Amino acid sequence: MKKISLILGVALMVVLSACNGKKTTDVAATDNATVVMENILARKSVRSYTEQPIGNDTIQNILRAAMAAPSGMDVRPWSFVVLRDKSNFENLFEGNMNLRKFQEAAVVIVVCADTTMAKRGTYDGSRVPNPIWRDDMGACTENLLLAVEAYGLGAVWTACYPFADRMAKIKAMLELPAEVVPYCVVPIGHHDGTTEPKDKWDEYRLHYERW
Amino acid sequence: MKKISLILGVALMVVLSACNGKKTTDVAATDNATVVMENILARKSVRSYTEQPIGNDTIQNILRAAMAAPSGMDVRPWSFVVLRDKSNFENLFEGNMNLRKFQEAAVVIVVCADTTMAKRGTYDGSRVPNPIWRDDMGACTENLLLAVEAYGLGAVWTACYPFADRMAKIKAMLELPAEVVPYCVVPIGHHDGTTEPKDKWDEYRLHYERW
Repeated sequence: MKKISLILGVALMVVLSACNGKKTTDVAATDNATVVMENILARKSVRSYTEQPIGNDTIQNILRAAMAAPSGMDVRPWSFVVLRDKSNFENLFEGNMNLRKFQEAAVVIVVCADTTMAKRGTYDGSRVPNPIWRDDMGACTENLLLAVEAYGLGAVWTACYPFADRMAKIKAMLELPAEVVPYCVVPIGHHDGTTEPKDKWDEYRLHYERW
Repeated sequence: MKKISLILGVALMVVLSACNGKKTTDVAATDNATVVMENILARKSVRSYTEQPIGNDTIQNILRAAMAAPSGMDVRPWSFVVLRDKSNFENLFEGNMNLRKFQEAAVVIVVCADTTMAKRGTYDGSRVPNPIWRDDMGACTENLLLAVEAYGLGAVWTACYPFADRMAKIKAMLELPAEVVPYCVVPIGHHDGTTEPKDKWDEYRLHYERW
């Protein structure tokens, strides 16, 4: 129902833009732009899944989207550990209040980040801290979630970094290299249809020329 | 040309999935899923713009997408300062090597973040540091960039946080409140068509069950 409202809302914006009579510099929304906007507005945190499995090609397509994120200095700090063995899920989510729900996910992706980058001007393998890896990872995770939504699946971004207890456990369990941290954990499944997107538009967040 | 390759690539993935003969649990890509994937893969950092202006409704739609990002504990730390006065652009980008190109942008959006959040269980306005505001901001900025791409416009994410010199200057110029930091600066314009997206797919970034 809320999805229909969103679609109607976006369509209305387009029609209003087209009909306002005065000359405008607004960009007319193509059908494709409308589809992309609807997908962004329809994304929601899905924590409850059916038992239907998800094939590996679908997961690879979703991770192709994740890898298309922008990254500072083109460092691409991301890697992904894909889990399907449900006996691993329990350890991963131990202590998380949503554990029981997450057990129903078809796949769990642990999104990982290399916190270092090659030292500029050296070719000897030296690495230095990357001051902006975390920003790239936020963009990467959002691409992943938007692809999940596009395929009609559901997922939820579960924070791992910067919480030392969550990180230590998952890092040991997945045998991550020293310079790699588990950034977040994303269970993915066919959602059971009970979660609706929120309308988070808030004009008071907009300022012009200064705060 | 590269965009056509991307479209063909996505189409090929869909056809291959459909034709592989064996029973699959992969999700068939709908037309809408293909459009969303293509938009994610087509996004690129555009640093060179034509002089064509951009209307305010378009900017508001783009910021509607930005505000639809997920956020930890639903804190929504984002705010946006929209700049159109070109005399302000110069100050903003002083010292940035891409300054001259960015001056051509129609609009510059300074994406800002409140680094605090309401203290749980209190209703007296007390605020505490938000440990994950930065992750939300990465997702928010990516949504913004994907909406820009969908409207056929171009933009580039220019890091501001955590670089003290960039932040201090922009914070003073825009008169941001004490708890608000300028997170990144995003010039937007009609791109001149010279920038192509990169194919960043890398199978070595994928691991199964453990690293």
